[in-house]
Amino acid sequence: MNADLVLTELMTVLKSRLPSAGGDPDSSYVAKLYAKGPDAFLKKIGEEATELVMAAKDQNQQTIISETADLWFHCLVALNYYQVDPADVFAELAKRQGISGLVEKANRT
Amino acid sequence: MNADLVLTELMTVLKSRLPSAGGDPDSSYVAKLYAKGPDAFLKKIGEEATELVMAAKDQNQQTIISETADLWFHCLVALNYYQVDPADVFAELAKRQGISGLVEKANRT
Amino acid sequence: MNADLVLTELMTVLKSRLPSAGGDPDSSYVAKLYAKGPDAFLKKIGEEATELVMAAKDQNQQTIISETADLWFHCLVALNYYQVDPADVFAELAKRQGISGLVEKANRT
Amino acid sequence: MNADLVLTELMTVLKSRLPSAGGDPDSSYVAKLYAKGPDAFLKKIGEEATELVMAAKDQNQQTIISETADLWFHCLVALNYYQVDPADVFAELAKRQGISGLVEKANRT
Repeated sequence: MNADLVLTELMTVLKSRLPSAGGDPDSSYVAKLYAKGPDAFLKKIGEEATELVMAAKDQNQQTIISETADLWFHCLVALNYYQVDPADVFAELAKRQGISGLVEKANRT
Repeated sequence: MNADLVLTELMTVLKSRLPSAGGDPDSSYVAKLYAKGPDAFLKKIGEEATELVMAAKDQNQQTIISETADLWFHCLVALNYYQVDPADVFAELAKRQGISGLVEKANRT
Repeated sequence: MNADLVLTELMTVLKSRLPSAGGDPDSSYVAKLYAKGPDAFLKKIGEEATELVMAAKDQNQQTIISETADLWFHCLVALNYYQVDPADVFAELAKRQGISGLVEKANRT
Repeated sequence: MNADLVLTELMTVLKSRLPSAGGDPDSSYVAKLYAKGPDAFLKKIGEEATELVMAAKDQNQQTIISETADLWFHCLVALNYYQVDPADVFAELAKRQGISGLVEKANRT
């Protein structure tokens, strides 16, 4: 699935877009969101969630992929801003599904 | 990050909750959502997105983790229902970030 | 349309549901929301907005009416909590549509 | 509150923005939304709902007024598109609050 690889690369990029890292609002969409402040990317989470719901109602797989990517991307923008590691989200998902043991075992080997 | 592992396990569970796989609405939350039909889990996407935004406004890292997990979980419930592979969402994210080449290379090795 | 009458009656009821007015969480849905705190009714705004969007996608007039009522109701619950008069929202709508003059004239006669 | 007057005027304007009424997408924001199709204004409902929630979290009365106006405006844009009379939404609200009798009496006098 390459989720780990993509997320790791993506978080590195997002980190470089923070004002504290010298992110340039003129050349980067994310740096612009960070410069505007949290409401700018938080409202995108509401907007993209609605667009995903509409894509689902249309049963359009391609649009569902595209809108889920939009939604998760803006979630990651928020996680990065609030200094939350997406790994903690996956740990939470593992815990809820009762697969934490499996994950721990994978980490040991 | 164990994202690949967690997502793979999670999708296996979600697949088993579909009515066609004999998911039991009485013993499983997800099977119940599937039995009710798409609006039941799509409205959760809107609700959890709003809860994530509120957690962000509160700058509460623990709640941000928990609400992001809720939101992504219900996205995965929807992806599974519409037979979309989350791998396609990560491929889309990679493409947008211009890291598709990196991902391809990782796949070859 | 009876909007003025319905809104006035509704706001009177909502005011009586506030904890400070002795609203009883055990016998009233709104009093229960107020007792839980703002997140309880704010997340309903996100949820009902999504349900309205889904009703619209289904082009179901009856559900559109019902979901719009749900959404506006929870907006009024919020307005009341934050001590905002819905009249100010209509004044804002009038201003934007350039019909403030008309409204003022109606008020004089 | 002038809700009836404002809503009546607003609906007259919205009706004139429909493609079938010759609404001009180049000179009118609403006519542009209608020309683009329902997803254009439905996603605004999700976005404005999120913005209202954020304004509420900030406890900013002026922004709450402004975002509620935005949200209700886009709801009215949708109602008009799906040929739903806002009067039916207020009738639904009255019914739920058990004030239908009051409204009927007002209509008779």
